[in-house]
Amino acid sequence: MTKALVLEKKLDLSLRDIAIEETLGPRDVRIAMKTVGVCGSDVHYYTHGGIGQFIVREPMILGHEASGVITETGSEVSDLKVGDRVCMEPGIPDPNSKASRLGMYNLDPAVRFWATPPVHGVLRPSVVHPADFTFKLPDNVSFAAAAMVEPLAVGVHGTVKARITPGDIAVVIGAGPIGLVTLLAAFAAGCARVIIADVDDAKLAIAESLAKVPGAVVGINVRSQRLADAVSRETDGWGADVVFECSGNEKAASEIFDVVCPGGVAVMIGIPLSPFQHDVSLGCVKEVRIEHVFRYAHVYPRCIAMLASGSIDVAPLITETFPFEESVQAFELAASQPKGSVKIQIEMPA
Amino acid sequence: MTKALVLEKKLDLSLRDIAIEETLGPRDVRIAMKTVGVCGSDVHYYTHGGIGQFIVREPMILGHEASGVITETGSEVSDLKVGDRVCMEPGIPDPNSKASRLGMYNLDPAVRFWATPPVHGVLRPSVVHPADFTFKLPDNVSFAAAAMVEPLAVGVHGTVKARITPGDIAVVIGAGPIGLVTLLAAFAAGCARVIIADVDDAKLAIAESLAKVPGAVVGINVRSQRLADAVSRETDGWGADVVFECSGNEKAASEIFDVVCPGGVAVMIGIPLSPFQHDVSLGCVKEVRIEHVFRYAHVYPRCIAMLASGSIDVAPLITETFPFEESVQAFELAASQPKGSVKIQIEMPA
Amino acid sequence: MTKALVLEKKLDLSLRDIAIEETLGPRDVRIAMKTVGVCGSDVHYYTHGGIGQFIVREPMILGHEASGVITETGSEVSDLKVGDRVCMEPGIPDPNSKASRLGMYNLDPAVRFWATPPVHGVLRPSVVHPADFTFKLPDNVSFAAAAMVEPLAVGVHGTVKARITPGDIAVVIGAGPIGLVTLLAAFAAGCARVIIADVDDAKLAIAESLAKVPGAVVGINVRSQRLADAVSRETDGWGADVVFECSGNEKAASEIFDVVCPGGVAVMIGIPLSPFQHDVSLGCVKEVRIEHVFRYAHVYPRCIAMLASGSIDVAPLITETFPFEESVQAFELAASQPKGSVKIQIEMPA
Amino acid sequence: MTKALVLEKKLDLSLRDIAIEETLGPRDVRIAMKTVGVCGSDVHYYTHGGIGQFIVREPMILGHEASGVITETGSEVSDLKVGDRVCMEPGIPDPNSKASRLGMYNLDPAVRFWATPPVHGVLRPSVVHPADFTFKLPDNVSFAAAAMVEPLAVGVHGTVKARITPGDIAVVIGAGPIGLVTLLAAFAAGCARVIIADVDDAKLAIAESLAKVPGAVVGINVRSQRLADAVSRETDGWGADVVFECSGNEKAASEIFDVVCPGGVAVMIGIPLSPFQHDVSLGCVKEVRIEHVFRYAHVYPRCIAMLASGSIDVAPLITETFPFEESVQAFELAASQPKGSVKIQIEMPA
Repeated sequence: MTKALVLEKKLDLSLRDIAIEETLGPRDVRIAMKTVGVCGSDVHYYTHGGIGQFIVREPMILGHEASGVITETGSEVSDLKVGDRVCMEPGIPDPNSKASRLGMYNLDPAVRFWATPPVHGVLRPSVVHPADFTFKLPDNVSFAAAAMVEPLAVGVHGTVKARITPGDIAVVIGAGPIGLVTLLAAFAAGCARVIIADVDDAKLAIAESLAKVPGAVVGINVRSQRLADAVSRETDGWGADVVFECSGNEKAASEIFDVVCPGGVAVMIGIPLSPFQHDVSLGCVKEVRIEHVFRYAHVYPRCIAMLASGSIDVAPLITETFPFEESVQAFELAASQPKGSVKIQIEMPA
Repeated sequence: MTKALVLEKKLDLSLRDIAIEETLGPRDVRIAMKTVGVCGSDVHYYTHGGIGQFIVREPMILGHEASGVITETGSEVSDLKVGDRVCMEPGIPDPNSKASRLGMYNLDPAVRFWATPPVHGVLRPSVVHPADFTFKLPDNVSFAAAAMVEPLAVGVHGTVKARITPGDIAVVIGAGPIGLVTLLAAFAAGCARVIIADVDDAKLAIAESLAKVPGAVVGINVRSQRLADAVSRETDGWGADVVFECSGNEKAASEIFDVVCPGGVAVMIGIPLSPFQHDVSLGCVKEVRIEHVFRYAHVYPRCIAMLASGSIDVAPLITETFPFEESVQAFELAASQPKGSVKIQIEMPA
Repeated sequence: MTKALVLEKKLDLSLRDIAIEETLGPRDVRIAMKTVGVCGSDVHYYTHGGIGQFIVREPMILGHEASGVITETGSEVSDLKVGDRVCMEPGIPDPNSKASRLGMYNLDPAVRFWATPPVHGVLRPSVVHPADFTFKLPDNVSFAAAAMVEPLAVGVHGTVKARITPGDIAVVIGAGPIGLVTLLAAFAAGCARVIIADVDDAKLAIAESLAKVPGAVVGINVRSQRLADAVSRETDGWGADVVFECSGNEKAASEIFDVVCPGGVAVMIGIPLSPFQHDVSLGCVKEVRIEHVFRYAHVYPRCIAMLASGSIDVAPLITETFPFEESVQAFELAASQPKGSVKIQIEMPA
Repeated sequence: MTKALVLEKKLDLSLRDIAIEETLGPRDVRIAMKTVGVCGSDVHYYTHGGIGQFIVREPMILGHEASGVITETGSEVSDLKVGDRVCMEPGIPDPNSKASRLGMYNLDPAVRFWATPPVHGVLRPSVVHPADFTFKLPDNVSFAAAAMVEPLAVGVHGTVKARITPGDIAVVIGAGPIGLVTLLAAFAAGCARVIIADVDDAKLAIAESLAKVPGAVVGINVRSQRLADAVSRETDGWGADVVFECSGNEKAASEIFDVVCPGGVAVMIGIPLSPFQHDVSLGCVKEVRIEHVFRYAHVYPRCIAMLASGSIDVAPLITETFPFEESVQAFELAASQPKGSVKIQIEMPA
């Protein structure tokens, strides 16, 4: 029996003992958890009991943004050893699937993903995980920063898809956690300026505080002005080279063609819950490229390297930290969506 | 005064004399017309008097798919000479626009395009045109084939955007002239097989006749079966590497994610007249890339080279030919949309 | 004991019984051989007893270009069944290597490759092979054509690396088997014309016979004229968009910058045995891209699809066929390098 | 007559009056010079009287890295106005050349480049220049930084060619001005770490001081250790994702394959004066991509945007500044190649 943060069903969450059976395979490692971030999807399972087709039907441990320390290694593991500080990809694909073999393991439909029913998450003392999806941390990357690699990976994967040319001007739609890590990734990947849109001035202020130089991040509250007007003003009427849609808002997603430049690219990261009216003719006259993002592939080592070298600093995004014993309170706070809160993390006992 | 096919207004079309003033600039050539194809847009101006914002308010000569012979050259023209057989790009951009300088001259909003109000088309004895948009023909490319370069360029530009990997399986939606030239371009650009969708069995039969080997083109009548089912069956459930949407049909355009494979690309060539319901989540789980096409840029010499080398044969698509004197009849036939008709061309008097 | 074509050491080759121990793993298939091509590397092992660091120290069965029929399947194999006609990739990488996971399994240094010491080849009645590297053939692809997929894959992989734009003009240096499959691949991948260079008029005549239209293939005997002059003449002084170096000749490889156009690409397929004088400044003023090819990855299904659809026809390249019993004579003929011979194949008994 | 820094012939340099005839065309601007950097090529003309085929046969004004203020505009110039602070591209291509129209104007052989015989440079009070190659500066980009855009553009263009994936590890060979701007460009474009090689510890110390975090730049003195060993150690034996060859040293250029990873890219920026022994087989087994760089195209606005946003800070590279009156001394200092000196600039009188 192990103590874990277990969601029984919608709004029924508690720290309790639960039986977890995990055997260490030859290519696996066992990891003692150190820091686990609270993701919007965790909160959504807590507040709604499911996401789309994924319904919580059995008690499920939450949490998938995690870092820790290796406590045991399988017989064939050579790259990792006991005591290594690590972070982990939460999704495990079938390595023999067609998608995996082509290098797109994130698109394998058989992927098993932490805290997605019926797979348990990692708000618990330890987990067994494939060594291939476990990544060693340099000394100067903290457990807290390492637990941010999971959301950061989404933004970095988005910039990989965008194929940024150094000096590009980007628009990021949405200043929540994914919007903000995408902003950091966009700068790290070569963007010179980011225009970021949201309806919350507190989030926009955080976004603007991430600029190296005043004016490099321009926050636009789309309650008070049209994004297209702001982008036109900031780009001499040409439009943005890259648009990252991170809000999942249908109206925002339907307006990407208004802000992108001729020959530019729009990267769809947020997933709107409903279809929306889409005008292809607007994309044609600008020959826009659209890329769609689903999680990430092959970017964890890249994220860790950029954290280690100072290319990306996620510390300003970690706004609250709770001890494991107060996990339920952490989720209650997250569910209340307080202004100025970006990422809440939970620290596991030593 | 010159004799030309003039559209006065909707459904009011005649061969008549019209005054055209054209001066030959130092970088221009004068071309005697030989063959002019009838495009769907020409027919739409004839039957509707306009396309979207482009309304025929003054008498306008129709025709923009053209080949001819050079009769005069400007003082600075060195690559072309009198007597050269040529075909011409109908759109002339501002060479100093930002889009042109970046190599995307087709996206320059200032482009002047034949037979788009208020610019005259070329169903007339001669035209003055910039040498930079006039292309010499090899001996083995006929005037008829050369007048097909304009629509073919759209399909070829679509395959350039697609970035085809040799051996790809393509879906082409729509078996009209643009769908069929796109099919030819897709094979020439490396596709191994094409699944083509339409509602007209006669067009599908023409499409299937373009296969080098039986089975290389699979026609699907979407009246009698779901395209997604057919594509799944033909690709062992994986989906098509490339989808070319050439129908401009809203329902067809909304279904591209159902037929494309994980990591695949959809190229939007047809322009739906109305917005439609678009479900981004379907694009995300497959990380689909979407490319939008607007006419073409830098592909005329490529099209001519592929016609000359036998990589592409457009002859089967030219289903009817009329003398210039019967131009009105040609348009009446085109407007009646006869089964089995693909491209109608008009031959100018010698 | 099984009867096989065994190379004992340099020039000591015979059909003889040899003990082969092969166990069928759960993801393996057993294949009865049908056709095996004779590759230049097989011949080199025969005539020299080794290639570079790979020395024949133990008796080794030759042959790695193969097709056959499945006679047994492992317990976890679901995509293939007994009786399926197939061809096989001769190299088996470690699926867990870093290179393999990134999708570049051909660059895995641990790859085990048929007929490369100490790994046996397949000039023998049957072989056990991973199902993941065994590919089902459509009915209209013959065993002879399927045994050509191995060399063809090299050429197709070269065209993938080249990222051909439809209508490109290519130069292929070398008209041996690899040069000729690269020529076929170049056309299939979108090239409009190919200028091919060799010192053997018989090979150049075969190359020219592969054109769909006279003039689409231009053979240049570099004994009698400079390739750079010919390319300049054929391209109005601009140069070729793509150069495929397939000769492995040091002098030819040192001249790629003379024939490629500004912004063009050179693909190094042949591997010169010695370093040569290389002038980077010539590559700089044209901003040439160079790609290097090592075997192939992920292209077998693409090659098979292009053979099935008529995009590529390898039949003209199969110039001689021997029964298995005359394998030694086949190698003796190959070693004599007869004029007009391209690919020699060996047919296995039923 | 205007006072300018005039090179009569090798080692004969003086500030003197010279007659310059410049007429302002409709698309030109006149610029009062503010800051001009001293480039290695300027110094080479001074010390050798020529570079390769470019020999100083007539008195020539030196200087091509420049910023200034607009004092007059041509009749068709609308984007720039008197008083605008600007920097300029020193090379003017023929806008109608094939290379220019394809977007590669840097490869146009007709380009006229400042301070390349017989074209005068800009160490003089003012110059007339096409508006299309003159770029407005934001307020927070100084004239000194703006005069660094010219060398910076070479490095940024190199990173565009490299197509960096965020988190890449780069090797920069050579820590002179071009090596150091390439290091800055590499970080701005997404590289997480840079290993930089030189023979001068002072330059390596400057390079290491540019790291955001200790260890992000690793200087390797190739006098005391093999670069390949260092790269292997820093990359767990895998090699660097990107190698920028900026030294122009033949031995260094011949070793790029030893330091690049499988599937990696080498960008040739430095131009070795002589050919060197090149072993293609080493490039093949890793399928290395090589890109060659010649100056830059379309990157000035990108460089300016990255200076303005703090993505790149060139200030640490400007190690000495002289008034215009002491231009000869500035060149004498540059010719003496003092340790720790990177970029010497000359400030023009107000």
